[in-house]
Amino acid sequence: MTPGEFREQGRRLVDWIADYMERAGDRPVRSRARPGEVFAALPEAPPERPEPWDAILRDLDEIVLPGLTHWQSPRFFGYFPANASGPAILGELVSAGLGVQGMLWSTSPACTEIETRTLDWLARLIGLPERFLSTSGRGAGVIQGTASEAALVAMVAARERAIRGGARAESLVAYTSTQAHSSIVKAGMVAGLGAERVRLVGVDERLRLDPSRLEAEIERDRGAGLTPFFVAATLGTTSSGAVDPLDSIGRLAESEGAWLHVDAAWAGSALVAPEHRWMIEGVERADTFNFNPHKWMLTNFDCSALWVADRRDLTRALSITPEYLRTKESDAGAVIDYRDWQIPLGRRFRALKLWFVMRAFGAEGLREHVRRGVRHGELFERLARESDVFEVVGERSLSLVCVAHRAGDAATLSAMERVNDSGEALFTHTKLPTAGGERAVIRLAAGGARQTDEDVRAAFAALERAAAETG
Amino acid sequence: MTPGEFREQGRRLVDWIADYMERAGDRPVRSRARPGEVFAALPEAPPERPEPWDAILRDLDEIVLPGLTHWQSPRFFGYFPANASGPAILGELVSAGLGVQGMLWSTSPACTEIETRTLDWLARLIGLPERFLSTSGRGAGVIQGTASEAALVAMVAARERAIRGGARAESLVAYTSTQAHSSIVKAGMVAGLGAERVRLVGVDERLRLDPSRLEAEIERDRGAGLTPFFVAATLGTTSSGAVDPLDSIGRLAESEGAWLHVDAAWAGSALVAPEHRWMIEGVERADTFNFNPHKWMLTNFDCSALWVADRRDLTRALSITPEYLRTKESDAGAVIDYRDWQIPLGRRFRALKLWFVMRAFGAEGLREHVRRGVRHGELFERLARESDVFEVVGERSLSLVCVAHRAGDAATLSAMERVNDSGEALFTHTKLPTAGGERAVIRLAAGGARQTDEDVRAAFAALERAAAETG
Repeated sequence: MTPGEFREQGRRLVDWIADYMERAGDRPVRSRARPGEVFAALPEAPPERPEPWDAILRDLDEIVLPGLTHWQSPRFFGYFPANASGPAILGELVSAGLGVQGMLWSTSPACTEIETRTLDWLARLIGLPERFLSTSGRGAGVIQGTASEAALVAMVAARERAIRGGARAESLVAYTSTQAHSSIVKAGMVAGLGAERVRLVGVDERLRLDPSRLEAEIERDRGAGLTPFFVAATLGTTSSGAVDPLDSIGRLAESEGAWLHVDAAWAGSALVAPEHRWMIEGVERADTFNFNPHKWMLTNFDCSALWVADRRDLTRALSITPEYLRTKESDAGAVIDYRDWQIPLGRRFRALKLWFVMRAFGAEGLREHVRRGVRHGELFERLARESDVFEVVGERSLSLVCVAHRAGDAATLSAMERVNDSGEALFTHTKLPTAGGERAVIRLAAGGARQTDEDVRAAFAALERAAAETG
Repeated sequence: MTPGEFREQGRRLVDWIADYMERAGDRPVRSRARPGEVFAALPEAPPERPEPWDAILRDLDEIVLPGLTHWQSPRFFGYFPANASGPAILGELVSAGLGVQGMLWSTSPACTEIETRTLDWLARLIGLPERFLSTSGRGAGVIQGTASEAALVAMVAARERAIRGGARAESLVAYTSTQAHSSIVKAGMVAGLGAERVRLVGVDERLRLDPSRLEAEIERDRGAGLTPFFVAATLGTTSSGAVDPLDSIGRLAESEGAWLHVDAAWAGSALVAPEHRWMIEGVERADTFNFNPHKWMLTNFDCSALWVADRRDLTRALSITPEYLRTKESDAGAVIDYRDWQIPLGRRFRALKLWFVMRAFGAEGLREHVRRGVRHGELFERLARESDVFEVVGERSLSLVCVAHRAGDAATLSAMERVNDSGEALFTHTKLPTAGGERAVIRLAAGGARQTDEDVRAAFAALERAAAETG
């Protein structure tokens, strides 16, 4: 492909994406493809000769689009939002166009230093203490692919720190809540602790990790000769958005010498608005803090921001330097080599999209976006409170509300399925612990990049209609 | 950003990238930025108000470009190539524009099924046996971020299989060669084996893992009550491109019941040309096979293709299903959920760029690209053989040749540094084991997407000139 052809097809695809943005709301939100349908639409063997771009674009329209669940539709309220935005898409485009590797500082200094600076910016923007900024000389931020990788990196660093401190690997125990994301347990599985050495501590009636139970579990494990080495607190759980009491948890972790990891994957974006910073009271005790701008901060996946209080904890656990990766700048300790802060060796220039987003929206644009999401959560909450059919379960957290049909789980799930089948909106479900067992709920997760009040109202109306039709 | 503004800025950036492609060879290959220079060029705090795109584009030219080492320059011969190409860049653009998540089949069926199909295509294209294709019903491919992640996933799956088979976690030992990539040891560190339980087996005079030494190490470990559970063979080592004898290694692994992982990260791309398939003799014994289209197969980073012979080995080791991730298609076992084949939960639509590359180049275009890289390796070899100053060390492997100054290591490294400082070309170094110890060599790694004979000649001439000037 010559640069001239790239110009031509590139413009076509930019237009195609702009058209997609404009029409994303017109499509059924959830794909109607049946298992195997897309697979069968592609030939069994790769083409021997080059195919024309017309054929590729036609397949984008005819095979790809019907096979997608449209996360960028303004009526997507499932899981958590995975915000895309124009500036972030263009950041990915430029990153791909430059095609540089940021594994070492010297393999592209700008790739490393723009990342370090934009994560300093982001730390300021969400109110993290100075110790997490690179300018502290000890902490700094790094972009990981996902919160799962951030949790794994933190756990591995914690393990090495504990072993350096004299603990036996076999004695190590980690703690998080029953409501924490599955990635914490998965990190334990990958790191070789096994799921059974990740304790799932019970929660209070607001589904927050209960510090008194954490204390009791730690005491029991200490009594059995085990070593508590890692505690993960969640700010904004996946099921209900519960915010663990960071301050109390941090004091316990500190008194045990355990690593405190804060998983704010979704709710972290809300911290750009100062009214939500009550969540991070006590964050100065954290060893690592993580949130995903790729969820609710307009930055395309993947962009998971991880800050570490002492960068040496990461590099001691993850650094290996064969001869072919030695450089004089690294040998001199003058630079950051991000390969030693992550699982992979290679890395692309992901900071560009974050830099573009922060510049194109400005801090005020990001605050406005988050506040709109919270207003939409409030609107969902109000609509559900006014409803005769649905009720709010638990409490709204930021832009997330859980609702259930008053008639019980079957009615809840069948109303949701009916909306999802209709394509008018998309919700996902979970089960929340209750006094008597657990209850199925529909999660209404607002925060999409292009959502309006009208989308929220239309989605809730679809849910009420579905309930009436199935009722 | 409205769709209209996206159209306007998108076209501008497509043109900017096309200009970059056209000019990439005019810039100094290695960045001249000093540590901290790019960081200092960015303000301390993020902008409060949105900035205009003119400011962002100006900074791309004035701050970013001088801070890059140009991996896409036709005179980049360092590390291994990290091929970008027009079709792959556009694939990344479309993936970002669609902004879908492929963690579950149901979160975008096309994202999963196009990946499964294109990896079947790719398996055919490189001559892998039928058992690695999804159509076998048992094996299939998956895109990982990097070969490091592929090795970690393989090792974790191997560990769980060994433990299911009755082995104690503490007894497990892995094997690879002293010349294997550092990612194998890193996988051991992350997975909790520790570097010390990854045995680095000695190599023969061609720097290939020596099966008789592997056998002896296994016997010694068995004698000590340990359990050999994982063997990684390398096709194309990073330092010299050595190709381990897969067939013999596979027989040993098989007789031990150990997992055989094949790391063909770089050399795997060469398999598109049938004359290089001698390397995979014995691959039918592999449990996992991995190579990086993002190195030498024109597909932008990140795209590391991993095939597994029995997909249940991955899903048993990596699957956790909280309620909020349950879907009826997954419960029915009718679909692939790639989240259970990888470390992260989320994943973007990376198959698009691979699909675009295979269609836009066709199989014949990919073979032509790889063959041109090999011809450039041969040209480097010839130039070095004709040289009075340099000599070839060891043997060329595909597009990789190692050369050294006849006067010794200091002369070798100073000639390389002088070229790298000049910006005329970029090489990296390594040290190769020799009878008497080790020898510093310059690695000439051809295979860039836009390299010509002229670039190869110019780069070698720069090296000879540098040697004359320092000599």
